Amino acid sequence: MARIVMKFGGTSMAGIERIRHVANLVKREAERGNQVIVVVSAMAGETDRLIHLCREAASRYDTREYDVVVASGEQVTSGLLAITLQGMGLNARSYMGWQLPIRTTQAHASALIDGIDVDVLERVFDDDGIAVIPGFQGVAEDGSVATLGRGGSDTSAVAIAAAARADRCDIYTDVDGVYTTDPRIVPRARKIPIITYEEMLELASVGAKVLQTRSVGLAMRENIPLQVLSSFEDKPGTMVVADELIEDSAMERQLITGIAYDKNEARVTLTGLPDRPGAVAAIFAPLAEASINVDMIVQSVPRAGQKSDLTFTVPTESLVQTSDVLEKLKEEIGFEEILTDTEVVKVSAVGVGMRSNAGIAAQMFQALAGRGINILAITTSEIKVSVLIPEEYTELAVRVLHTAYGLDAETPE
Amino acid sequence: MARIVMKFGGTSMAGIERIRHVANLVKREAERGNQVIVVVSAMAGETDRLIHLCREAASRYDTREYDVVVASGEQVTSGLLAITLQGMGLNARSYMGWQLPIRTTQAHASALIDGIDVDVLERVFDDDGIAVIPGFQGVAEDGSVATLGRGGSDTSAVAIAAAARADRCDIYTDVDGVYTTDPRIVPRARKIPIITYEEMLELASVGAKVLQTRSVGLAMRENIPLQVLSSFEDKPGTMVVADELIEDSAMERQLITGIAYDKNEARVTLTGLPDRPGAVAAIFAPLAEASINVDMIVQSVPRAGQKSDLTFTVPTESLVQTSDVLEKLKEEIGFEEILTDTEVVKVSAVGVGMRSNAGIAAQMFQALAGRGINILAITTSEIKVSVLIPEEYTELAVRVLHTAYGLDAETPE
Repeated sequence: MARIVMKFGGTSMAGIERIRHVANLVKREAERGNQVIVVVSAMAGETDRLIHLCREAASRYDTREYDVVVASGEQVTSGLLAITLQGMGLNARSYMGWQLPIRTTQAHASALIDGIDVDVLERVFDDDGIAVIPGFQGVAEDGSVATLGRGGSDTSAVAIAAAARADRCDIYTDVDGVYTTDPRIVPRARKIPIITYEEMLELASVGAKVLQTRSVGLAMRENIPLQVLSSFEDKPGTMVVADELIEDSAMERQLITGIAYDKNEARVTLTGLPDRPGAVAAIFAPLAEASINVDMIVQSVPRAGQKSDLTFTVPTESLVQTSDVLEKLKEEIGFEEILTDTEVVKVSAVGVGMRSNAGIAAQMFQALAGRGINILAITTSEIKVSVLIPEEYTELAVRVLHTAYGLDAETPE
Repeated sequence: MARIVMKFGGTSMAGIERIRHVANLVKREAERGNQVIVVVSAMAGETDRLIHLCREAASRYDTREYDVVVASGEQVTSGLLAITLQGMGLNARSYMGWQLPIRTTQAHASALIDGIDVDVLERVFDDDGIAVIPGFQGVAEDGSVATLGRGGSDTSAVAIAAAARADRCDIYTDVDGVYTTDPRIVPRARKIPIITYEEMLELASVGAKVLQTRSVGLAMRENIPLQVLSSFEDKPGTMVVADELIEDSAMERQLITGIAYDKNEARVTLTGLPDRPGAVAAIFAPLAEASINVDMIVQSVPRAGQKSDLTFTVPTESLVQTSDVLEKLKEEIGFEEILTDTEVVKVSAVGVGMRSNAGIAAQMFQALAGRGINILAITTSEIKVSVLIPEEYTELAVRVLHTAYGLDAETPE
């Protein structure tokens, strides 16, 4: 007997027919003798509808009241799934975030989970019951409803799995797993059967459509094995687990697990920087203070006493703010000009296997150079090599690297 | 300064434009220096949509889970109204039934209010704030959400008014008050400016479209003045108050306040009943046990030792059950035949004024006889005379009585 959290996303809960199918999946898991907790999203489109109502009501709305409104979406699907499961003869019951409770911080609309009381859940298990819990929501210290922000239901599921010491958290969605890259770009992309938390986090740009990044980080910290699978097709998905769990089969592992890309990068270049100690700190300290995430950094090495250029990337949505912050400090920093470019993309090769294998980066540069793709910046980590290139080369670069690292399937999946 | 509960029904909350108008009405009341609590219904049509989803999910659904689903409708409108009021610069906040709490019985889908904690509301008043509370819902002793049954929001409003010792409970709806009879039948029906609780209860068939009967009974017990008025038009509505409050102007009061009719009556006649003690008890005791409400009763006076007939009415939806119960006891009771008729209507003249005035009933019989309308049964109470007549005469009888008692307005309103 295992204890399993099953989480179903909005497309899986979109309408009674889909909910009935979900109930059948839950029933099958229960009939295998497993203890099941179900975590549900709102029906696809419902959260957007409710957010739109809030925006119509007032352009600047109180997030505490916003949470009251949007939390209703998961409340409805929880009740409906409990009713459907009962109709199939199962002992199911819904528990809202405030009923367990799922305790959160006071940060309405983007609350963090503080803790989850599992006494109620343990009683449900003692009674051979199935608990249905709305994702995305909890109750803050002052007794108000608080939601976790968009996509928070995945995080709810992992947090509940951790609190209830579940053996596994299954995330059912409308895709059947995590692929070696975006199948819309590379039709021969392959589904990855097993992947580490770290790789999953680095593949966020490929995987984020599948699994909320925040929930992967939590699963890693709490060491909860995740499974991403489709509620629409009955086939195995992708397991996301700790590194140790797949070390055994390392010999057979690909060096590279997948190719990711991220268009949400903007390049900033400061020209004519003076060559003096502390110049770089004078730039990045105020950006950090403004909570701007700087990603890739490239500094041209100046000749002694001469001026140099500095290039770095920030998320596209932070570009205006970045320019504002730096323009104000122009005198102090002493640069000549700010150049910006949003027509760039970061392409990354990710894989735990590269740790023990030199030459991965060189292979990447060679493959891109072979197609005449100019590299604007480079960063590397233990399990990732990333390059910044002009955005127009996105598809070409992803395809070239997918082939170069031997990831192509023999036939399109 | 007065303390006022303002309750808004589904048509008043149907969409952001309507909610904004409601917010303006609330603002006006607050700007008069009054303390305001707002109670809201779900958007028109939303509760039906949610009920339909529950029915689709399972033909026989758990009312506890049904309550989780349907309570979401008022949750959404509460949050949206709070957001809208805040957008107008008012210090508003929503409080769900479980947050106050509004404590109810465990009877899901038809719960009764046990008590309401007003500590939170008093703190809101101390803070010059406005509380927005979803009608129709509370929390049962076991911590589950419980709803009060359809139309329960009126009852929520009155119960909150009683708990908070409000001076008045204003029920905003899509009609502008209670009329002397159904204006669709009598275009010269007049709006009643002031009416007693008792009259309002007796006029249920006219007034039920306006105000839930259960809420009137509660207002009467708690002595909370009600005002029924339109959220669509800015004009005075109908005040519903205790008898004492209008006794002073009794001299000028109409003898009859209004004419009601109720098509939800079915006539049952048992023929050939033996003339023996206990025969009638043998009929009505088992009906009472089956929770069937018997209304009008007419027994033909038998000659000594001969058989007689007994006629009574039950709600139309109880007719099949009534026949079933009696058929099983046919031998025991000793009747010959059950005759039933659903093509009947009960027409009533209602008015506190008739207490001190004989001849009201005679006037009624005369007026109906004048149009050749056959009376099938009669009942009278302190403030009501009712007759059962063939349903096809409904409109004619209502019009004739409305004129006979001098209720016609000079011009159609």
